[in-house]
Amino acid sequence: MGGDFAPEAVVKGAILAVQQLNPEDKILLIGQEDIIQALLQENGYTGTAISIVHASQVIEMGEHPTKALSQKTDSSIAVGYGLLKMQKADAFCSAGNTGAMLVGAMFSVKAIEGILRPSIASFVPKLNGGYGIILDVGANADCKPEVLEQFGELGSIYAKYVLDIDNPKVGLMNLGEEEGKGTVVTQAAYPRLKANTSIHFIGNIEGRDLFNDKADVIVCDGYTGNIILKLAESFYDILSEKGIKDPFFDKFNYEAVGGSPILGINGNAVIGHGVSSPNAICNMVLQAQKMVSSNISERFKKIIA
Amino acid sequence: MGGDFAPEAVVKGAILAVQQLNPEDKILLIGQEDIIQALLQENGYTGTAISIVHASQVIEMGEHPTKALSQKTDSSIAVGYGLLKMQKADAFCSAGNTGAMLVGAMFSVKAIEGILRPSIASFVPKLNGGYGIILDVGANADCKPEVLEQFGELGSIYAKYVLDIDNPKVGLMNLGEEEGKGTVVTQAAYPRLKANTSIHFIGNIEGRDLFNDKADVIVCDGYTGNIILKLAESFYDILSEKGIKDPFFDKFNYEAVGGSPILGINGNAVIGHGVSSPNAICNMVLQAQKMVSSNISERFKKIIA
Repeated sequence: MGGDFAPEAVVKGAILAVQQLNPEDKILLIGQEDIIQALLQENGYTGTAISIVHASQVIEMGEHPTKALSQKTDSSIAVGYGLLKMQKADAFCSAGNTGAMLVGAMFSVKAIEGILRPSIASFVPKLNGGYGIILDVGANADCKPEVLEQFGELGSIYAKYVLDIDNPKVGLMNLGEEEGKGTVVTQAAYPRLKANTSIHFIGNIEGRDLFNDKADVIVCDGYTGNIILKLAESFYDILSEKGIKDPFFDKFNYEAVGGSPILGINGNAVIGHGVSSPNAICNMVLQAQKMVSSNISERFKKIIA
Repeated sequence: MGGDFAPEAVVKGAILAVQQLNPEDKILLIGQEDIIQALLQENGYTGTAISIVHASQVIEMGEHPTKALSQKTDSSIAVGYGLLKMQKADAFCSAGNTGAMLVGAMFSVKAIEGILRPSIASFVPKLNGGYGIILDVGANADCKPEVLEQFGELGSIYAKYVLDIDNPKVGLMNLGEEEGKGTVVTQAAYPRLKANTSIHFIGNIEGRDLFNDKADVIVCDGYTGNIILKLAESFYDILSEKGIKDPFFDKFNYEAVGGSPILGINGNAVIGHGVSSPNAICNMVLQAQKMVSSNISERFKKIIA
C-alpha cells in the first residue's frame, strides 16, 4: 500500500518480478485484500507465486513514523515487519513512509547485536560500469568514527555478496585526499578504517570521485550521504527535463536499482522511492531476492563492534 | 606566478581584463619581473594600466601553506598580501596554492573583528539564470552553529552587493526541509538563522535544491560545501567528456566566475582555480573589481558576533 502510485504500481511490479524470479520464490502482497485481488485480476494474473496477506490500515507518507506504527498495528508496514520477524517472509520491501520503514525495522527485527547503527544505503552508477554503494544516506545524520568504520564493513559485505564486487575498495568521503584532512569525525574515522583488516580501505575520496573507480564503497554520515544522493538525483532530473539522454546518466534513474536496503538489521528490508513505478518495484523485489540468496543479513552478524 | 599555467595565463588574463576595466583601474602583476616583462611584450601589451611588482619567489602548489609563507617572504603570495595590508592594492587575486592564500589572508590583513571564521565562498549556477553563492567550501571543515549563522550574513551581503540580488534568500543545507531535521549543528543553527533579522532565512534546503530558486545563499560547513562543489564540477567534467553541451551546464565551467572569494577579512582576496585559463583570470579580476567598487569588505564590518 506504500508509495505514491500504490497499490496499482506495486501489483504490476510484483507481476513483472515473478516472471524473473525462481519458480520456488513467492511474493506476498500485504494490504487491503479486495483491492489487491481486483488489481491482480485486472492485470490478468492467474499464477500461484503471488498471494495476499490482508492488512486493513495504511501509514500515509506524511505521518509521524513512531506514532503511526504504534497506532496502526494492522498497517501494511507493521504487518510486513511482523512477517519478517516471524520468518514468514525472507525479505520485506515497501515504497511507503521511509521513516516508518526504518523505525519498523528497529522495533521489530531490531539491529544485529554489535551493530552500533543500522544504515540506509544507496547506489551510485560508475563510469566504468556497474554500481558502487554509498552509506549512510539518511538514517544517521551524525555519526561517530566507530559508526563510520562499521559502515565500511557493512558496505563491503553488501558490495561483495550482492553487487558481486571482488575485494571492494572502501573510500571515506572527505574534502581532501591526504590523511589528516577533514572534520574531527572523519579525521578520527580514517585510522580506524585503515586499521580494519576485514576491509580494503583506500583512503579519503572527494566529491569528484563519486562516479569514478576509486572506491566501490563510499562511507559518510547520513547528512552528507543524503545531500550527495539528492544532488545527484537533481542532476538526472535536470538532464531529463532538457531531453539529454545518455546511457551513463540513465543509470541515475532510481528505477534501475529499485530501492535502498537497510543494512545491519536481523532481516532483509528495502525501502523504495515514493514515486516507485512498476519497473522500480520489480527491481526492488529482485534486489531483495539477491539479498536473501546471498544470505547477506547473516553475513553482517560476523561484524564485531 | 600561481596556477598550473602561470605566468603565461595570468599575463594574458590581465591583458584581457584591462580591456573591460574602468580607465582608472590598474593591475599590478606580482612576480618575477623579467619573465612578466617579456610576456607582456610577447603579447603586444604597450599600455600603462598594467605594471609589475617584483617578487623573486614562488610558493608551489604542493607546499605546506604556513611553512611556505614564513620561509618565502618574497613569494608572490606574501608580497601580494603585503600590498593588500598596506592598502597599496585594493584586491589581491591568485590561482596559486589555496592553503597559502587562506593562511596569508589570516596572517596579513586578518579576520574582521567579530567575524568568527572567514569563509571561502563559491558560486552555483541557477536554472532560472544568474548564480547563487555557497559557503563555506573548504576553509572550515567543522562549523559551530554561530559560525553557520555568520555565513548566512556574509553570503547575504555578498549576494546583495556583488551579485546584485535584492533581499537574497538564505537556505541551510540539510537532509530534510522540516525544522528539527539534520545534524546536532544544523539543528542548532536553524533557530539562530531564523532569529537573525539582518537576513532573509527561508529554512532548510536539500541537495536537490542547489540549482533551483529556493535559496540564493546556501549555508553549510566547509566539509559539506567542498563535497557539493567537487561533485558538481565532476558532473560538468563528465558532460564535457561526453561532448554534451548545454547553456545551463556551461555555467558550471569555473572560468565563468573566475574565483572563490575569501569573505570576512580586512580586504578583498580571491582564490582562482589551479587550472585557471586567461579567461578565468580575466573574470577573477573583474569579480575583484566588483568587490572593490561595492565596498564589500567594509560592509562585512557591520556584522556583529
